[in-house]
Amino acid sequence: MGGDFAPQMIVKGAVEASRESGARLLLTGQPERLQEELALFSGTDHKVDILPAETFVPMDASYTEALRRNSSTSIAVGLEAVRCGEAGAFISAGHTGAVVGNAFMNLGKFSGIDRPAIMALYPSLGGPVAVVDAGANVDCKPQHLRDFARMGSFYLEEVLGVQAPTVGLLSIGSEPQKGNKLTLAAWQLLADSGLNFVGNVEGDKVFSGECRVVVCDGFVGNVVLKMCEGFGQFVLTSLERSIASDEAGRRDDNLHRAAKGLQQALDYAEYGGALLLGVNGLCVICHGRSDSRAIVNAVKAAERGLAHRVVEKMRLAAEKWAVVKGTEGAT
Amino acid sequence: MGGDFAPQMIVKGAVEASRESGARLLLTGQPERLQEELALFSGTDHKVDILPAETFVPMDASYTEALRRNSSTSIAVGLEAVRCGEAGAFISAGHTGAVVGNAFMNLGKFSGIDRPAIMALYPSLGGPVAVVDAGANVDCKPQHLRDFARMGSFYLEEVLGVQAPTVGLLSIGSEPQKGNKLTLAAWQLLADSGLNFVGNVEGDKVFSGECRVVVCDGFVGNVVLKMCEGFGQFVLTSLERSIASDEAGRRDDNLHRAAKGLQQALDYAEYGGALLLGVNGLCVICHGRSDSRAIVNAVKAAERGLAHRVVEKMRLAAEKWAVVKGTEGAT
Repeated sequence: MGGDFAPQMIVKGAVEASRESGARLLLTGQPERLQEELALFSGTDHKVDILPAETFVPMDASYTEALRRNSSTSIAVGLEAVRCGEAGAFISAGHTGAVVGNAFMNLGKFSGIDRPAIMALYPSLGGPVAVVDAGANVDCKPQHLRDFARMGSFYLEEVLGVQAPTVGLLSIGSEPQKGNKLTLAAWQLLADSGLNFVGNVEGDKVFSGECRVVVCDGFVGNVVLKMCEGFGQFVLTSLERSIASDEAGRRDDNLHRAAKGLQQALDYAEYGGALLLGVNGLCVICHGRSDSRAIVNAVKAAERGLAHRVVEKMRLAAEKWAVVKGTEGAT
Repeated sequence: MGGDFAPQMIVKGAVEASRESGARLLLTGQPERLQEELALFSGTDHKVDILPAETFVPMDASYTEALRRNSSTSIAVGLEAVRCGEAGAFISAGHTGAVVGNAFMNLGKFSGIDRPAIMALYPSLGGPVAVVDAGANVDCKPQHLRDFARMGSFYLEEVLGVQAPTVGLLSIGSEPQKGNKLTLAAWQLLADSGLNFVGNVEGDKVFSGECRVVVCDGFVGNVVLKMCEGFGQFVLTSLERSIASDEAGRRDDNLHRAAKGLQQALDYAEYGGALLLGVNGLCVICHGRSDSRAIVNAVKAAERGLAHRVVEKMRLAAEKWAVVKGTEGAT
């Protein structure tokens, strides 16, 4: 029920994903509305069913309002299915705050992790780069950034097979003494973390791929995510205008093909959503503007996470991180 | 002497700018080194002279180190020329922290403004957008953000002729209750400021041009500036690779022309540097990687500011802001 094009595009994406991989998908939400959409895809070539939910969280609901409705919403019903083992993962293009808050309450967080965080994967010239936190925690403490780095690093190593991923602290200069109060304090914790910490990195390093895990507080992580989205849109519109204003360019197939290729490279739908790390269940958070292709890619991201049992493994790892944290005072 | 391609590109840019507009330019720095570069441009078609400075601030100097050298550096000598009226504006592609710190100490700040701030102009579909602060103040108080908004708004109105510019607060959602501690507190101050405040804006709104002044703390402003720079580079490299991998594309002039057009649209050198607002003198801060074209555009930005007497006018305006602030406690 969540997202700007819900439920149409969500249902279409679920059917397409099920057809592609054979995955069984449950649609949580108002059964009549979902049945109406699902009826458009008759046949036995997909395994998409409905898991009824009485209400849903409107996209413009406040955080407190979103959580007050709790157990009857499509988000809460979906997360409950994960908690009780009926579903392996939860995917939503709905209200991010409601997903994070409900996941925190219903699934619970790892021991050893104070703050679950959103990991967004960015394209880069050196392969996918994980930016953590992309929006779950607006005001952070230094140790939260260290935990984000641990989770992001663990994901890249386990799921994407990156050996000892380089970890950078998003800041305003590469020198350790550059940054704000938060990053200045987080620097030493990261240096002592045992991770492959490369120090402060500036924003341009995200896209060069020199660093595969980039940590920041969720305010900064969310601002840059949306900034890049807007910039991508600006670039495409500028390119389209430039093509349209050029007589020869308008009739040029190569040019249109290149523009389409660029559009694809910049399209968030290609990247399969962001993962909520640190809770006892696999949660994929999709863009509010998700179309069916974005949902198909989100299902793939969930399948990848399940195949690597990343939640179970990360939970075990986090328990050891907790032990290390517990002895910090004594060293 | 400052910048990755100094002094070659700085001298070349100064000569080109002087040839174009007839401006008189003073190069501050080691006279022998500058004379050597200047000798490459003989003739009487430019008015570029040398103002000697014994030392300069290395690009990798720490902030405290940069300020300790103080009066003998090319930055300090240039700012002193502005202070005593020998020069109308100061332009630097050097150490940003040193420029900000020296400007603060040598020129002094406006009464009514606690924190001078860097204003970066971004391209957008609706004309240039001012992002303040782009890096002068890493940890800010709510009233600083209100002051940034006032200065940015004043500049757009006076220099770019934008009537009552729309002002947005960079945050993670458009609703007033979304944000971090700083933005939540700044929201009301901006709403009460008398500016054309449109509320919170997300990063994508910077490039759509729906909002012409975007305020944020200098940590966030600097991170997004560099992030966008890296993203622009990523887009261009992706497009070039896509063209190179396509047999027909490689031989297509239209495609290469479109790529060049896009490169130009994304090139920081086109935007003439950032302005340091709130100090008693016009300071243009250029990108460290400035080439001669960036310097030419920075000179144009300085000339525009001088033609509009923006520093004098903003200083007078800021005195009135101070009066309003002074009565805040009583209201």
